[in-house]
Amino acid sequence: MTQTQDAFLVSLGTALPGDPVDNAQLAKALGVSEEWIEVFIGTKTRYFARDFATGEVRWSLADLAASAGQRALDAAGYGPAQIDFVVMGTATPDTLMPATVNHVADQLGLDQVPTYQLQSGCAGAVQALDLARTLVAQTGGTGLVLGGDVCSKHLELREDLGEAAPSELVNYVLFGDGAGAAVLGPEPVGEAVAVRRVLNRLTGLGRKPGQVIEWFGVADRHSDKQAVHEDYKAIEEGVPVMAAEILWELLGELGWEVNELDYLLPPQLSGVMTSRIVAELDVPGATEISCVADTGNNGNALPFLQTEKLLRQMTSGQRALAVAVESSKWIKAGFALEKL
Amino acid sequence: MTQTQDAFLVSLGTALPGDPVDNAQLAKALGVSEEWIEVFIGTKTRYFARDFATGEVRWSLADLAASAGQRALDAAGYGPAQIDFVVMGTATPDTLMPATVNHVADQLGLDQVPTYQLQSGCAGAVQALDLARTLVAQTGGTGLVLGGDVCSKHLELREDLGEAAPSELVNYVLFGDGAGAAVLGPEPVGEAVAVRRVLNRLTGLGRKPGQVIEWFGVADRHSDKQAVHEDYKAIEEGVPVMAAEILWELLGELGWEVNELDYLLPPQLSGVMTSRIVAELDVPGATEISCVADTGNNGNALPFLQTEKLLRQMTSGQRALAVAVESSKWIKAGFALEKL
Repeated sequence: MTQTQDAFLVSLGTALPGDPVDNAQLAKALGVSEEWIEVFIGTKTRYFARDFATGEVRWSLADLAASAGQRALDAAGYGPAQIDFVVMGTATPDTLMPATVNHVADQLGLDQVPTYQLQSGCAGAVQALDLARTLVAQTGGTGLVLGGDVCSKHLELREDLGEAAPSELVNYVLFGDGAGAAVLGPEPVGEAVAVRRVLNRLTGLGRKPGQVIEWFGVADRHSDKQAVHEDYKAIEEGVPVMAAEILWELLGELGWEVNELDYLLPPQLSGVMTSRIVAELDVPGATEISCVADTGNNGNALPFLQTEKLLRQMTSGQRALAVAVESSKWIKAGFALEKL
Repeated sequence: MTQTQDAFLVSLGTALPGDPVDNAQLAKALGVSEEWIEVFIGTKTRYFARDFATGEVRWSLADLAASAGQRALDAAGYGPAQIDFVVMGTATPDTLMPATVNHVADQLGLDQVPTYQLQSGCAGAVQALDLARTLVAQTGGTGLVLGGDVCSKHLELREDLGEAAPSELVNYVLFGDGAGAAVLGPEPVGEAVAVRRVLNRLTGLGRKPGQVIEWFGVADRHSDKQAVHEDYKAIEEGVPVMAAEILWELLGELGWEVNELDYLLPPQLSGVMTSRIVAELDVPGATEISCVADTGNNGNALPFLQTEKLLRQMTSGQRALAVAVESSKWIKAGFALEKL
């Protein structure tokens, strides 16, 4: 499809719940070794909306997204009246209804605008950006783009975790919680970073999902089914190849040479996987912008956390390219930024 | 915001699972009287993806949506190559990841296109139409719009249901399962029905949700929390007022006189509520197009089921207006159709 005209990143905000949980705390709670976490996952800290010691749920996804959204609005100097639509991406809504985006809007004082909540995993923030960019181009309005995930409902800190299968334990060390927000508008104000292109494409025909996350209702909640499944072999094989395809396709469409790239925002699966992907992408001239080793894989929050780091160092004329892969049903995603 | 140019409804398809479940069957299973169902709900039949006798889940939401989608594609005479994007609205995805829309795409042979799944209730099909219309206008592409809901995970046919609170029982007689699909394109081909306007607006600032549907994860699934909550008083008071506001706002924006309206597609909460709303809207010149008394409230499928009935009788030059209210966080929704 034809790409829309540019939209501009005006401001950004993020929110991480509470204090970081380090590998020593996690290893003790799970009955695994710190070394196992470091070698196989490579993530040093993560943040949980559920208090890791008491089990109390302290933040909802709506709370975190509203906090990130308020920071983005404040950074732009915008009030609710300047926002014409809201788009949010998440894999883990607080409830099925109302959509969490509407509680976020309520907390931010936003009303009388369209709101959209996209159900999506690692590609969700990019899908939200894609949709927001289309709406900016089509309507000339300004939007608030949100993304975040909270794993509280799946973070069961039970006493027999030490006996759990590695395929279950790994989910406790892989994920984290968080949210991000960006104001996107039709004019280069604030950060004045142009969104030059967005890639968002399903490529899963005939391929088994690489990641499945179940939800339970009243009728099936007493089953002992595991809720989160990953096909690590398929992910380890598939994601680096797809990441390279995304990089080169975006560069080709943009007409950018690889040596014109100042920053690379690679997929954030885990510390170990991200390092491996960056090595395979082999773009030595671009500065890597990653966060997963410090934040854990908090899904739809990741591209915002990476972009926040990027904006702190990006100067006029510089170019950045973000690559995201959703292994659930194999979605290729990415976006290109250029600071005016 | 500025509205986009027209998009055109090319074709439509729907899918309802299995045989209709009538009030006699339902009354017996729930230990309530048929009369109670008729007087308070007014719905005569509904369809369940879970076999009502054995409890076996026979269709997923993806199955139903793919079935509806295939019918829409067949009706248009389109193959997968003619679809440039997919948008789906649902409150009850099969899993949190992958998004159900991607399994539907897989079943339909769709690939290498963007897919979007909106988390939404009674306004979801309208939100999907809204987004699809924007994408058609922006890209010139053709999209498949999907909507559906399946309550299998919440339909617990346990033996002590007769002792359940009325607030819980009502959910068993209110809801049903189903899916719908429409092909939307930039040219007036096939059904050649223009989508003249779409309304999609959050109006929930400071208002408590009228409907909440919870999902459970591993950590909270053993709680005894009820999953579906409705504030019937707020819904009965709020929805008719909002429905009238939507009707008159849309007519005003379209520049249509109320007596120019040939068909009215009112909100489909239940047989009783829909009759009451239609009486209050008081548009005697327009033919009412409703389905909820026969299909139950199957959420995001409803506007497709209504539109399918509409298309069977709509003739050139006729105008229809659909009104939907999402009571979860009070979303005003609606759309206007005109056959060329």
